[in-house]
Amino acid sequence: MTQPNLKPETRRKLEKVSVATLATALYKRGLRQQVIQDVRPLAPKGRNMVGPAFTLRYMPAREDRNQLAEFRNPEHPQRKAVEICPPGAVLVMDSRKSATAASAGDILVTRLMKRGVAGVVTDGGFRDSMNIARLEIPTYHNRPSSPTNLTTNEAIDINVPIGCGDAPIFPGDVLVGDDDSVIVIPSELADEVADEAVSMTEFETFVLERVQAGQSIIGLYPATQDATLAEFSKWRKTLTTEQSR
Amino acid sequence: MTQPNLKPETRRKLEKVSVATLATALYKRGLRQQVIQDVRPLAPKGRNMVGPAFTLRYMPAREDRNQLAEFRNPEHPQRKAVEICPPGAVLVMDSRKSATAASAGDILVTRLMKRGVAGVVTDGGFRDSMNIARLEIPTYHNRPSSPTNLTTNEAIDINVPIGCGDAPIFPGDVLVGDDDSVIVIPSELADEVADEAVSMTEFETFVLERVQAGQSIIGLYPATQDATLAEFSKWRKTLTTEQSR
Amino acid sequence: MTQPNLKPETRRKLEKVSVATLATALYKRGLRQQVIQDVRPLAPKGRNMVGPAFTLRYMPAREDRNQLAEFRNPEHPQRKAVEICPPGAVLVMDSRKSATAASAGDILVTRLMKRGVAGVVTDGGFRDSMNIARLEIPTYHNRPSSPTNLTTNEAIDINVPIGCGDAPIFPGDVLVGDDDSVIVIPSELADEVADEAVSMTEFETFVLERVQAGQSIIGLYPATQDATLAEFSKWRKTLTTEQSR
Amino acid sequence: MTQPNLKPETRRKLEKVSVATLATALYKRGLRQQVIQDVRPLAPKGRNMVGPAFTLRYMPAREDRNQLAEFRNPEHPQRKAVEICPPGAVLVMDSRKSATAASAGDILVTRLMKRGVAGVVTDGGFRDSMNIARLEIPTYHNRPSSPTNLTTNEAIDINVPIGCGDAPIFPGDVLVGDDDSVIVIPSELADEVADEAVSMTEFETFVLERVQAGQSIIGLYPATQDATLAEFSKWRKTLTTEQSR
Amino acid sequence: MTQPNLKPETRRKLEKVSVATLATALYKRGLRQQVIQDVRPLAPKGRNMVGPAFTLRYMPAREDRNQLAEFRNPEHPQRKAVEICPPGAVLVMDSRKSATAASAGDILVTRLMKRGVAGVVTDGGFRDSMNIARLEIPTYHNRPSSPTNLTTNEAIDINVPIGCGDAPIFPGDVLVGDDDSVIVIPSELADEVADEAVSMTEFETFVLERVQAGQSIIGLYPATQDATLAEFSKWRKTLTTEQSR
Amino acid sequence: MTQPNLKPETRRKLEKVSVATLATALYKRGLRQQVIQDVRPLAPKGRNMVGPAFTLRYMPAREDRNQLAEFRNPEHPQRKAVEICPPGAVLVMDSRKSATAASAGDILVTRLMKRGVAGVVTDGGFRDSMNIARLEIPTYHNRPSSPTNLTTNEAIDINVPIGCGDAPIFPGDVLVGDDDSVIVIPSELADEVADEAVSMTEFETFVLERVQAGQSIIGLYPATQDATLAEFSKWRKTLTTEQSR
Repeated sequence: MTQPNLKPETRRKLEKVSVATLATALYKRGLRQQVIQDVRPLAPKGRNMVGPAFTLRYMPAREDRNQLAEFRNPEHPQRKAVEICPPGAVLVMDSRKSATAASAGDILVTRLMKRGVAGVVTDGGFRDSMNIARLEIPTYHNRPSSPTNLTTNEAIDINVPIGCGDAPIFPGDVLVGDDDSVIVIPSELADEVADEAVSMTEFETFVLERVQAGQSIIGLYPATQDATLAEFSKWRKTLTTEQSR
Repeated sequence: MTQPNLKPETRRKLEKVSVATLATALYKRGLRQQVIQDVRPLAPKGRNMVGPAFTLRYMPAREDRNQLAEFRNPEHPQRKAVEICPPGAVLVMDSRKSATAASAGDILVTRLMKRGVAGVVTDGGFRDSMNIARLEIPTYHNRPSSPTNLTTNEAIDINVPIGCGDAPIFPGDVLVGDDDSVIVIPSELADEVADEAVSMTEFETFVLERVQAGQSIIGLYPATQDATLAEFSKWRKTLTTEQSR
Repeated sequence: MTQPNLKPETRRKLEKVSVATLATALYKRGLRQQVIQDVRPLAPKGRNMVGPAFTLRYMPAREDRNQLAEFRNPEHPQRKAVEICPPGAVLVMDSRKSATAASAGDILVTRLMKRGVAGVVTDGGFRDSMNIARLEIPTYHNRPSSPTNLTTNEAIDINVPIGCGDAPIFPGDVLVGDDDSVIVIPSELADEVADEAVSMTEFETFVLERVQAGQSIIGLYPATQDATLAEFSKWRKTLTTEQSR
Repeated sequence: MTQPNLKPETRRKLEKVSVATLATALYKRGLRQQVIQDVRPLAPKGRNMVGPAFTLRYMPAREDRNQLAEFRNPEHPQRKAVEICPPGAVLVMDSRKSATAASAGDILVTRLMKRGVAGVVTDGGFRDSMNIARLEIPTYHNRPSSPTNLTTNEAIDINVPIGCGDAPIFPGDVLVGDDDSVIVIPSELADEVADEAVSMTEFETFVLERVQAGQSIIGLYPATQDATLAEFSKWRKTLTTEQSR
Repeated sequence: MTQPNLKPETRRKLEKVSVATLATALYKRGLRQQVIQDVRPLAPKGRNMVGPAFTLRYMPAREDRNQLAEFRNPEHPQRKAVEICPPGAVLVMDSRKSATAASAGDILVTRLMKRGVAGVVTDGGFRDSMNIARLEIPTYHNRPSSPTNLTTNEAIDINVPIGCGDAPIFPGDVLVGDDDSVIVIPSELADEVADEAVSMTEFETFVLERVQAGQSIIGLYPATQDATLAEFSKWRKTLTTEQSR
Repeated sequence: MTQPNLKPETRRKLEKVSVATLATALYKRGLRQQVIQDVRPLAPKGRNMVGPAFTLRYMPAREDRNQLAEFRNPEHPQRKAVEICPPGAVLVMDSRKSATAASAGDILVTRLMKRGVAGVVTDGGFRDSMNIARLEIPTYHNRPSSPTNLTTNEAIDINVPIGCGDAPIFPGDVLVGDDDSVIVIPSELADEVADEAVSMTEFETFVLERVQAGQSIIGLYPATQDATLAEFSKWRKTLTTEQSR
């Protein structure tokens, strides 16, 4: 099983940039489908979720295999995933883009939080979402879904490549979520994309200040005028490292 | 017309349990489609909506039958439903899962609230939803919808069996809504399901405490280890009746 | 290009009425499709957005025409629209009802705000929507969308007739948005519809007061009893002009 | 229960006109939603289905009420509808626009055919549709659907007003289906719309001949040039009554 | 890897019954989701496809992993699946219910046919479907889809449990397709369900004869009258074994 | 207005290749969205539609602007487009992916055919589609749609860039349709893509012959073995030019 292997400094960089900025950085590299579509935070956290993906795959539930007694099996893949997802990782579930039944509820998500997991994502829905929203752990879904998981979902595979919200996810890919959405960074690109996104964010912060001060975007964003780059360079020197958002 | 006949103690029990817990209790009984799909509270109320269903059925509007003058008819089914829905009941509307036009607006919902109705549910949308959200009465819909009801809906039947968000609803079935969603309990099951859900909720509260204290879910949830049941039994004795959520 | 030509007094009237009331006023005139469907405010503003429409049309993006370098072109229609949309107008975008990629982000919306634009509407989604929600300018979309605009959208036409959320929009039509949704008033109807909506709103305020005081809606709403109209007339005299909401 | 009351000469006229022509005739009268959306013939019949509507309403199935044994009840509404739908009428089913499970199968449709019913329409799907397609009786659905009716549908009401494919249908309204789709003519308009559609069809036949002969549509369709009307009048005289399609 | 293990006599029985009949037989056993939804034959074959499932799972394609050169890899899972799917089995693909790009084309399907594979099913679409329709091998999809597989699909797993059209499929389950749709029979039920379906088909044939002869369905279907069963018993004796369809 | 400028030899080449092959040729060039999604031929023609695009853009209809009398205007954009679309071109309509009302009917399509237009495509639906299917001219839509165009569509622009079935179309781009679907080739790529597709088709024909003769696809398709290329080269020489399909 893939060992999450995300450098602490890369994690720190990714905590300070937006999913939008990361999406543009991946777009430059020809990757256009990495944002998980139609998934949103249960509550805004004002901080990013960052961590390597640990995946759980659901298939449609067949009634005879999905009675409540199944959960008594300590090897049931959903329960097992909750207990073995590495601390610092993000548990991400392929729920086949259906929120007809729940992907998980507040007890499992609390357990994940206590185990140090960095976040939980599904392209379906959580039950008890009103409670999950109040937990500290960042969580993302399509919409609240109260029916028990077994109604339509059978957990079938742990840590295999999956789709989530039409994005491709391989175990170990780095997930970043902000108060808008979640993006998937291929693991081998995480370091360079983090660096680039930090730079882009600095420039965007500079641009936003200028725009708030009344400047036109033409020549400024993107920086097609030499003057813009010169001013940005000057502005940047006035910043201490920690001021960049 | 069905007289709502919900025992006060059953109502009280249902006010203290979540829709998710009720969904599991009905799942055990082979009922898998009782949660109203894709309907949400206009605002979180922090308390449950509980009441027997009083239904209103809409059909697609034919233009010649749905001019504004129709509302002048004191027997117009939508207006009549608002005036005869019993206090303590929940008015639930089959809007054919379409929020293209409104199911109702703030004046009608305010009237229902003043008449003592327990809640209002549609699988379409409310107009003036920004105002309705501020009312004390719990209300549930798919999304705000400003066009007048008549644009696509003709109220055609009062208190007949309907579908709402793909759930089957018979007049007198007990509707329970929390800050996530709404569930339909067949009237003949309301008492026993309420009892079971109260017990389940006690156990879930116990489990959640243990999980917050760091315990694994294996053996605990579900309680496959004898020790778990023994501890639960002990924990339960330490509770006064009123402490169970 | 159409010059926005909205009378200040019409604007003031439209700031005080709801989209629902306007939808009914247009319904009386046979216009049933004027509410932009499935579009919502990024944040409630507690006040109306009002302004003549200035439009931007997107078409599906072809990869070779939509590399990041395109934004370096000062004549790129999206960037140009942001710089020439008249102060007081609303920039409204036909994003083909798709939020797969962003219609715009926080830098462009901030620039529009600084230029005095009255609001921004798309039937797609904004990126950086968590930031845009905090700006003073009213903004409306379907859902947050982090991928860069170029992923699926090519800005192709400025200020042509468009569809937005299945509503027809001609440049200069008056857009009004409240905390529920946005409506399109044909420019030639703006004055008369504003007048009528103000009157309707007065009556609805009266009705709501009565309903809150416990009166039935039968005979009151609509006012089929002469007594209702007499009481309304009396109630109205007790109001100073400014008290009508 | 409404007695179908369709004049034989109206039926004959409606057998010779297309749904498209009827849709235009109703459009002139302000009725825009009368075509049943997204429903198609199981097989082209090369002739029209015509008959007054006899309706059956389905609601979502609750598992405990929809075991196979239910069909043993001679009063089961689906089976009863099949036995009492009047000869010459069209059985039309509100299946809530879902083809997840069947609306009916080949045995019931064969029984309806033997009883002289004029056609069967659902906005869901038929099972055994490969067999039904070969029957003489015209049938319309969304797509084949093999699961038994009880899986998602409970037949609940006979001959009440319903929606089918978003069109409003009242018992006794006249349904006309061709090889494209099905339209609903309000019963009180059937005679005049049939007359008008026959005239329109004559003119369209004339236009089509001219277009096939190479004439431009400008001035011809619609007939804005006096010459066109004169030629049509002459052309018409050359027809015996029976030649009009 | 699962060895298909379908008894020849079970296969022969399943070749003579309809998917609708099989769906009812599974419904009796509590299995309600076994019909693959919204998938249809490319061309009617007038005979059933029968075979154990051999599965292929697709995930969303990431651009850098899905260039045309990938197909040069002899271990590419799609190409490999085509070469190792056992003769007599059905290759069934989880294409995530998307026909935006192809699941396969005529060359691969021809190869499968030549290798003796019993059929091919996808919940996406085939390219070259006009050619595939003319092949003898039965094939099922949602709709034609011309873009190359790599556009949105990455083949990732061979012969794992999958979903297809919302039905659960385990390797070795028995797939049966007729001219309407495809059903999934859990492998352990195949023999008994085949037997039961043959009996049911005999009775349905009898019923259909009676209905064609003018008999009412009440008491006949289901057979609630003793006379019906007696007549069926007599009718059955007049049949030689081979006459049952 | 763009003059269609398609070389006769390019047209001839495009008449002999499939949309699937063209999609792969464009995929190699980084163009992934060029197939018009969810649009199909009204009837198989057994030959390709080829021609430069002449576009018509629809917007949502506003009721007061879309009464039947509008068609009396000789400058009505839909009627005008029918009369000025160049012979040899393909009229392609952006109907906003909605078949709720018709994009055109049999009279207009017959006129286009008589004028020598090469084909007609809409991402909505045609009325009188049963008649249009029998015409010689190739036509493509989503599904039959009987309501008059004016019900939801206002023709607003002629020969501007549009989207159709989520594909980007610029006037003059070359449309190719086969019995599966339609693809859009950017005009500047038409010649080279036609050449490449002819070569690819030759190779695919060779591959298909080999597969029909029992050869494995590994090493053959794609041709990773030198032997394959050598055999193809030999095979090719045995062909007269005209034998390549």
